[in-house]
Amino acid sequence: MIAIVREGITQNGLDELCEYFKSQNVQPHVIVGEKQTVVGLIGDTTSIDIHLLESMDQIEAVRRVSEPFKKANRKFHPDDTVVEVGGVAFGGGSFQVMAGPCSVESEEQCMIIAEAAKKSGATVFRGGAFKPRTSPYAFQGMGKDGLDILAKVKREFGIPIVSEIMDARDLPLFEDIDILQVGARNMQNFTLLKELGKTDKPILLKRGLAATIDELLMAAEYIMANGNERVMLCERGIRSYDKRTRNVFDVSAIPVLRELTHLPIIADPSHATGYTRLVAPVAYAAAAAGADGLEVEVHHDPAHAASDGAQALLPEQFDEMMKRLALIRSAVTEPITEG
Amino acid sequence: MIAIVREGITQNGLDELCEYFKSQNVQPHVIVGEKQTVVGLIGDTTSIDIHLLESMDQIEAVRRVSEPFKKANRKFHPDDTVVEVGGVAFGGGSFQVMAGPCSVESEEQCMIIAEAAKKSGATVFRGGAFKPRTSPYAFQGMGKDGLDILAKVKREFGIPIVSEIMDARDLPLFEDIDILQVGARNMQNFTLLKELGKTDKPILLKRGLAATIDELLMAAEYIMANGNERVMLCERGIRSYDKRTRNVFDVSAIPVLRELTHLPIIADPSHATGYTRLVAPVAYAAAAAGADGLEVEVHHDPAHAASDGAQALLPEQFDEMMKRLALIRSAVTEPITEG
Amino acid sequence: MIAIVREGITQNGLDELCEYFKSQNVQPHVIVGEKQTVVGLIGDTTSIDIHLLESMDQIEAVRRVSEPFKKANRKFHPDDTVVEVGGVAFGGGSFQVMAGPCSVESEEQCMIIAEAAKKSGATVFRGGAFKPRTSPYAFQGMGKDGLDILAKVKREFGIPIVSEIMDARDLPLFEDIDILQVGARNMQNFTLLKELGKTDKPILLKRGLAATIDELLMAAEYIMANGNERVMLCERGIRSYDKRTRNVFDVSAIPVLRELTHLPIIADPSHATGYTRLVAPVAYAAAAAGADGLEVEVHHDPAHAASDGAQALLPEQFDEMMKRLALIRSAVTEPITEG
Amino acid sequence: MIAIVREGITQNGLDELCEYFKSQNVQPHVIVGEKQTVVGLIGDTTSIDIHLLESMDQIEAVRRVSEPFKKANRKFHPDDTVVEVGGVAFGGGSFQVMAGPCSVESEEQCMIIAEAAKKSGATVFRGGAFKPRTSPYAFQGMGKDGLDILAKVKREFGIPIVSEIMDARDLPLFEDIDILQVGARNMQNFTLLKELGKTDKPILLKRGLAATIDELLMAAEYIMANGNERVMLCERGIRSYDKRTRNVFDVSAIPVLRELTHLPIIADPSHATGYTRLVAPVAYAAAAAGADGLEVEVHHDPAHAASDGAQALLPEQFDEMMKRLALIRSAVTEPITEG
Repeated sequence: MIAIVREGITQNGLDELCEYFKSQNVQPHVIVGEKQTVVGLIGDTTSIDIHLLESMDQIEAVRRVSEPFKKANRKFHPDDTVVEVGGVAFGGGSFQVMAGPCSVESEEQCMIIAEAAKKSGATVFRGGAFKPRTSPYAFQGMGKDGLDILAKVKREFGIPIVSEIMDARDLPLFEDIDILQVGARNMQNFTLLKELGKTDKPILLKRGLAATIDELLMAAEYIMANGNERVMLCERGIRSYDKRTRNVFDVSAIPVLRELTHLPIIADPSHATGYTRLVAPVAYAAAAAGADGLEVEVHHDPAHAASDGAQALLPEQFDEMMKRLALIRSAVTEPITEG
Repeated sequence: MIAIVREGITQNGLDELCEYFKSQNVQPHVIVGEKQTVVGLIGDTTSIDIHLLESMDQIEAVRRVSEPFKKANRKFHPDDTVVEVGGVAFGGGSFQVMAGPCSVESEEQCMIIAEAAKKSGATVFRGGAFKPRTSPYAFQGMGKDGLDILAKVKREFGIPIVSEIMDARDLPLFEDIDILQVGARNMQNFTLLKELGKTDKPILLKRGLAATIDELLMAAEYIMANGNERVMLCERGIRSYDKRTRNVFDVSAIPVLRELTHLPIIADPSHATGYTRLVAPVAYAAAAAGADGLEVEVHHDPAHAASDGAQALLPEQFDEMMKRLALIRSAVTEPITEG
Repeated sequence: MIAIVREGITQNGLDELCEYFKSQNVQPHVIVGEKQTVVGLIGDTTSIDIHLLESMDQIEAVRRVSEPFKKANRKFHPDDTVVEVGGVAFGGGSFQVMAGPCSVESEEQCMIIAEAAKKSGATVFRGGAFKPRTSPYAFQGMGKDGLDILAKVKREFGIPIVSEIMDARDLPLFEDIDILQVGARNMQNFTLLKELGKTDKPILLKRGLAATIDELLMAAEYIMANGNERVMLCERGIRSYDKRTRNVFDVSAIPVLRELTHLPIIADPSHATGYTRLVAPVAYAAAAAGADGLEVEVHHDPAHAASDGAQALLPEQFDEMMKRLALIRSAVTEPITEG
Repeated sequence: MIAIVREGITQNGLDELCEYFKSQNVQPHVIVGEKQTVVGLIGDTTSIDIHLLESMDQIEAVRRVSEPFKKANRKFHPDDTVVEVGGVAFGGGSFQVMAGPCSVESEEQCMIIAEAAKKSGATVFRGGAFKPRTSPYAFQGMGKDGLDILAKVKREFGIPIVSEIMDARDLPLFEDIDILQVGARNMQNFTLLKELGKTDKPILLKRGLAATIDELLMAAEYIMANGNERVMLCERGIRSYDKRTRNVFDVSAIPVLRELTHLPIIADPSHATGYTRLVAPVAYAAAAAGADGLEVEVHHDPAHAASDGAQALLPEQFDEMMKRLALIRSAVTEPITEG
């Protein structure tokens, strides 16, 4: 950490400041410049409040040098983390697609979609039983009954299940669910993150509506610091001023996260865009940029879906997308031959 | 609701579309324009999914005509709601200031600050016992012990208390707390909102980091739809691309909310700016724009505060601010005399 | 255009409003709903000021039904526009890559880079002679001398040239330049756009730092309305709150623009990201999402580049990228074979 | 400037890096930390490209210590700059209001508005003759005829005039105009800024649609570095994701700018909000936050204004606003008396 000292500080002021730093268990190291004096702080600076330092009379600004996340940090864990669940391995060079409806609506609906999705190559089935909806008057999901249907899909097709959990008190209901999803609106629901850190299930953590990449990693850090290191990160679009799409899919977050962290990186092109006709192009972009997998909404009858039918792919659209994704993955990962 | 029909639709296509609308219990009303045909939808459109309609082949775009919030809507409740708590009335023309430290650190700390704050005119004491922190390694608050200290402050100074609740399971601990605060990161924690809707305590609902004004009102609607109509809204700055302040304080949200809703509107200049020296100017701006009150951080020893010392006012700064706020309130509310 | 009428309007008020609309040469068509009355406006509404209508006492809100851009609108020009320049065709199914240094620094530098870029498959050479720099103290480009060097590159390699123009008065200097680039900061420099509309050269129009997709199309419309319809649009990243990249590359803008307009769509992964190591992943994403081409910075000695060396690819990096881009293009455009 | 060195650098690598810095005429100063090594760079770092350093293999990140603006920087010019024009002094403790219509439409219109505005206390008359409009099909202003009308207003009422200039070639037409306004869309039209730097007229520089505070100051620096130090900065709202207002008025930019620069700070509540009913609250907020003045749109017949009638105040609304503004100014600037 570097503290930039205000102009005109006296030697006394500087000495006092250094004493203060020592009292906080960090070692000050003064550099006197032509126009500016800075103090390098050496030691464990994670407990120092940058904003507080910046508010001190003697200090003009503070710059953090090392990232505040540790367990999620690739520096301390250079190899990719592989999250294995029900025979499906996320990270480490594979590409996994989780597909299914936004909301679980009926057993019949889920069976139809699961069969088609699996046939096209999906390796995990998704479905929402507890739905975070902007309006209290909108369909809130089937709840426990929805989870029961998902468990049946799992038994029928031998495929792991991912579903969103909104309340730690519901954990017992999720026993049969393989991957617990944390929605964008709950990315900084620290209560929930701590509780999920005490479970042993993989967590699919969605980036908040306007979360920075660092905040996403700090949210992962909450889960990991509580004991659960099987976290997968999901880019699902961020808020912008443009209203032509629901969100802006931040495609460069994928290579940036790849550098910063060893955790698997998933993309959700359905929520990022909000419109069926944009899902495939954005899915292709995510794969081309190096994502480890996708979560995609598929529905056999979008016009009668209980939620977000507008962004669901038909099974035949999903099938074509899966074929092109395989080609794109080859294009970016296979060695280039001379010629 | 208005559906804009795609160019080149046949009469058959239009008829089918109208049949679909009728099956959804809304009455279609077709307007054929020179370039464009639109269908006005009359009836209860709250359950219709705009995104789904927009994804239909026959439809180009859909525009909502009426706001999706009802109980929070001034149209259906023209008079200001007054939230009364412990003898303090929020809304309806008064101006209330909630002041205190970011975090409860000790009984002594709270007593010192409460005495000073009350003397300067604060009518509610604030203090955090459960703290939402970006880092799992940062101070998470004193928890139950902090709430006990707040209860002592309440008894000692006869002043109502506001404190943040992060988990509905903690509700029993908050028995002595008068106003329950929902933090920005939990604004769309729908589980929490629903539970708070079943209590009878006033809720201070903070705007999410990048929430729209409409989303803030829909979050209030969650609480109100569950039975608790004593909701106060709090503008606390929104995320922007500029890093000179922690957030951008959206001052025009105050008159916009005044128009849209009857609920009291509070401003938090401390979190909005993140720096002590910006707190008073932004507080003045909020009062000038018509806020019903403020929530402000005050600390007698910011350099040793456990959290957010960088944005706390000293008691003497708070005192001057309170005096100027009274003058500003008069400037904007008193009748203008001729002269 | 749809005007939503304020609640409680009298029949007289509604009649007056309709008379006002007629005086503005649009035909009003009233729909009385249960809660809300709306007026559909039929005729040429392009000259009506939405904000003004919304400020009228009788009106609550106004929704535009048709897009404000015409010449750039795919509705009125369903086929892709192909911009042909020096034997290179942009749009209509091809994929063109413009490559070269951020700034022209010397003849030798340009010759080295041009030779490598052409060999790897670049079809246009880029180089900046007039540089828009945030700081007045930064290198502002070689000016006319730089353009002369670009003309030599053109003669030597028989490859068209693109370079940024910042001032319409410089047009005579650009005689040998094939494509005139308008930088992001000048996207709404309407004076410049109008003058470029009077030339017969293709224009590469970059999206403004925080421009909406509609504003980009309206900027194109300025050029086209003045007579020059050879406009290419360039997505180059938009401003966001996250500081891990210079900008957020809005990859979904590519399929959105494809739908809205017939003009060629180019992507600039260099400025979008600001860091060499992110350029290739974002370039792959752009190609996968359906872009018609790229503009990319290449430099043989980035450490000594006069500007933006941090985002330049080395020739060997560029070469690998070109090979993978070809594979990605096939992956998304070729027919899917059964198997 | 501080360079943070990548982990695992060898002593050789570090020595080479230091040699490189010396070749760039800055003195390196190495600090070896427990986890991280940083190099402080002392000397003139304004010509060093941060992005380039960050792209070097040996370097992880770079932090700037001193601001890149000089002439606009309060550090090097602690006293407020007072811009005097036609007997009106901006900055240094006064409060000036520039008022008038968005567009000049006719001599009669301007005379009516100017008389009313002056009577209510406006000290400068504003009116647009060259209008930057998003659409090429919208009214583009009266041009030279509009400037002639403004010159007549000046003679008739003895009041200075401010009007927007979009093209440096128009400078001769602006001889009678006292203050040249640079619109938000031209804030980084560096060609225009440089030319205005060669004039001797005060410049009213509007913040770009999504410009950072630092970019605004760098734009001012362009004008000042070219010789004209009479620059006034104008906050007029920045782009956000919320569509309830046209822009978000960044009220905290006022105290932030006050700290960073000695230049006068003006606010434009009309463009910031876009709606008449929000103009006064935001104007009050700007004054309360410490602005040196306002630019406000006034029109006697907004329903027939040629542009932006939706945000204009009627003369009587303006009059009330001026009275309340005077009270607010007193509230924030007068000494607090004991009581």
